[in-house]
Amino acid sequence: MEATYRALCANGFASLTMRDIADEAGKSTSLLHYHYDTKRNLLVSFLAHLLAGFEEKFEETEGESPDDRLRSLVERLLPDDDGEEYARFGRALMELRMRAPHEEAYREQLQTNMRTLRDRFADVIREGVEAGVFREVDPDRTARLLLYSLDGARSFHVTLGDDDAPAETAAALDEFVLSSLLVDGDAERDAE
Amino acid sequence: MEATYRALCANGFASLTMRDIADEAGKSTSLLHYHYDTKRNLLVSFLAHLLAGFEEKFEETEGESPDDRLRSLVERLLPDDDGEEYARFGRALMELRMRAPHEEAYREQLQTNMRTLRDRFADVIREGVEAGVFREVDPDRTARLLLYSLDGARSFHVTLGDDDAPAETAAALDEFVLSSLLVDGDAERDAE
Repeated sequence: MEATYRALCANGFASLTMRDIADEAGKSTSLLHYHYDTKRNLLVSFLAHLLAGFEEKFEETEGESPDDRLRSLVERLLPDDDGEEYARFGRALMELRMRAPHEEAYREQLQTNMRTLRDRFADVIREGVEAGVFREVDPDRTARLLLYSLDGARSFHVTLGDDDAPAETAAALDEFVLSSLLVDGDAERDAE
Repeated sequence: MEATYRALCANGFASLTMRDIADEAGKSTSLLHYHYDTKRNLLVSFLAHLLAGFEEKFEETEGESPDDRLRSLVERLLPDDDGEEYARFGRALMELRMRAPHEEAYREQLQTNMRTLRDRFADVIREGVEAGVFREVDPDRTARLLLYSLDGARSFHVTLGDDDAPAETAAALDEFVLSSLLVDGDAERDAE
């Protein structure tokens, strides 16, 4: 999976071969084919691996307040590296998503990833509403706003070099969504 | 420009030829080359044409309240057609954006388009803040949240068939951003 990440960064998605990935892993292509059969299967596994990383982060935040959990999950979706590697990986993922309308295996896995992320965010928001910490909002709709805005920001970041997009979006989400969810949000902001 | 739109819907961006566009226009390819020289130049003009359509809408809203103007501009960015044509056109624009890192002419025009949209939204927000209709927010940051979330929603709509994405995002933006901007927002919402 790490070799696939490095190969996607180095080659993008369109021209990626099993050979590129095998070389990054220091393994033979036949071993790779033995485990994954096709490049498509390997990339579907890679997408599932990305989702598993998010799920792990989600579980780590269990026990935190709904507010802290949301912030941790938003942070998880922000770039932890502003360099060219991050941009290349982001573009490779976009290329993969562009293939989704034509490739059922990618489409289904990407739909699962997106649906799961939305559900996780919505679960935390619902938890906060039920605990009386968050005001009454539509959990799914709110989750969508978080995810789509971070996704759009990443798209402009990695394709048009809009380097401020992710951080400015995180700040806007904090102000308009995360802080506004808190029932005692104004008091908290004033106290800061 | 209309023929280019139809050709992009029919063929996507990757395999689009001057012949496709000429055929849609009912003109010869030589006439097309006379006016635009290359496919790249034609597509840059097409992107400028899309921006001009937005600018026209922007001017039409002059004289409206900042709140109404923002809502009109958000609406302008929502799909007016849920069909396959809209999805194909959306994917073609994404493909074009994916070329931006490698093609300066696309990158510069797309940066101009994005920058102008952001500035127009920010101008209206600033106008509202200065008039005391909107609370004190960062106009540029707020504009980014509007644009990126609508862009992300479109991406999931046209690549993964998430048909509810644009309308749910518009509803979330209304609740978390547009209505919250109004200084007397709660009163207005209660009166509705």
